[in-house]
Amino acid sequence: MSSNKPVIDFYFDFSSPYGYLASTRIDALAARHNRRVTWRPILLGPMFKAAGTAPLTNVPLKGPYSVRDFLRTSRFLKIPYTQPAAFPIGTQNAARVFYWLSDRDETKARQFARACYHTYFAEGVDISPAEKVADIAARLGEERSAVLAAIADPLVKERLKNEVDAALARGVFGSPYLIVDGEPFWGNDRLDQVEAWIETGGF
Amino acid sequence: MSSNKPVIDFYFDFSSPYGYLASTRIDALAARHNRRVTWRPILLGPMFKAAGTAPLTNVPLKGPYSVRDFLRTSRFLKIPYTQPAAFPIGTQNAARVFYWLSDRDETKARQFARACYHTYFAEGVDISPAEKVADIAARLGEERSAVLAAIADPLVKERLKNEVDAALARGVFGSPYLIVDGEPFWGNDRLDQVEAWIETGGF
Repeated sequence: MSSNKPVIDFYFDFSSPYGYLASTRIDALAARHNRRVTWRPILLGPMFKAAGTAPLTNVPLKGPYSVRDFLRTSRFLKIPYTQPAAFPIGTQNAARVFYWLSDRDETKARQFARACYHTYFAEGVDISPAEKVADIAARLGEERSAVLAAIADPLVKERLKNEVDAALARGVFGSPYLIVDGEPFWGNDRLDQVEAWIETGGF
Repeated sequence: MSSNKPVIDFYFDFSSPYGYLASTRIDALAARHNRRVTWRPILLGPMFKAAGTAPLTNVPLKGPYSVRDFLRTSRFLKIPYTQPAAFPIGTQNAARVFYWLSDRDETKARQFARACYHTYFAEGVDISPAEKVADIAARLGEERSAVLAAIADPLVKERLKNEVDAALARGVFGSPYLIVDGEPFWGNDRLDQVEAWIETGGF
C-alpha cells in the first residue's frame, strides 16, 4: 500500500452536488502528484448550525441559481449529473456504512462512496433510506443484514459523530472541503488551487 | 464606438473582493470575443436582505476562511490584493458617482470604477467617505465640488436605487454576477464558464 504518500484530506457530504463533482476528480489529481486521498464523509447539518447557514437551495434567489449551476457546471466538466427529486437528503446512513467499511477495507469504502454518489447524482435516486444504502453495499459483496445492523449500531453512530466533531474542530464548514499540508480549500472550484499548491509547495 | 457588440452585464459591489478580482479580468475576456462589458455597480446590502444572507466575513467559520481565500486567490491569479482594515464598507458614494459619470462618459466611469477598486483592494484604503471618492474622481479631472454635489443629489441617489432594484428584479444576489445572453453566472470562479459559454454559444 501507498500509506506513506502525503495525504489530501477530502471532506464531503453525500448530499452535496459540488462534493460529488469533486469526488470524480480528486483521485486523478492526487495520482498526478503521488498523493493519496483520505475520503471523509461528514454531515453538513451540524456545520450549517455552527455557521448559521442553510442548504444553498433553501436560500431565496440563490436557490434557483444553484440548481442551474449544478447542472451547468457538470456539463462544463463533462460529469454525468441529474438533479435529484429528493434534495437535500439526510446522509447519515451512507456515512455510517462508509466508516464501518473503511475500518476493514479502505478501498471498498471508497468504491462504496463512489457508488453512493453515482446513485444519487448520476441516477437521481434517493440514497437516504437504510434499505437503499444496503442495496449499494450488497452490490459490492456485503451482506445486507450486516449493513443494516451497522447502520443501527451505536458504536458506528458514535464513530460518525466523532468524525463530524473532529471535522468541525478543524474548521470544516462546507462540502467539498480539502486540507492539503495544513492549507484549507473549500469547493470544487478550488481544485485548480489545490493542484497548484501541491505543485509549488504553496504560493 | 463599439456599441453594437453583444454585451456582458457585469454586476459588482465596490466592497466585494471577488468583484474586484473579476474586474481586473473581465474586459480582456470580453475583448477576446469581440464583446463589450456593461459595468453595473450595485449594493449588496439590499440583496443580502432579500436572500436572508450576510457578508461572508461575518459568518462564523466561513469568515476567517474567506479572508484567507481572498488573499490566496489573488496570489493564484497574480492580482495585487491587500485585505482592507475597514471591511466590508458602504459603497453607495462610489456607486452614485459611477452612474453620474456614466451618463456623460462611460469610459471615464469605468476608469473611475477601476481606480476605486484599486484604491480599496490594492492599497487597502477605505473608499466609503464622500471625500475619498471625490479625491479619486478629481484625479480623473472631475471637480471635487461637483462630485460631492452629485453624491448628495436626490436624482443621483434615485438613479442608483433604480439600478439596484432592476438588478434584484433580474435575480442578481451577489458580486460579481454576470449575465451573458440571458445566462447568469455568479462569482469570479465562473469566468471560465462565461468564456466557454461565449465560445460555444452555450453548453
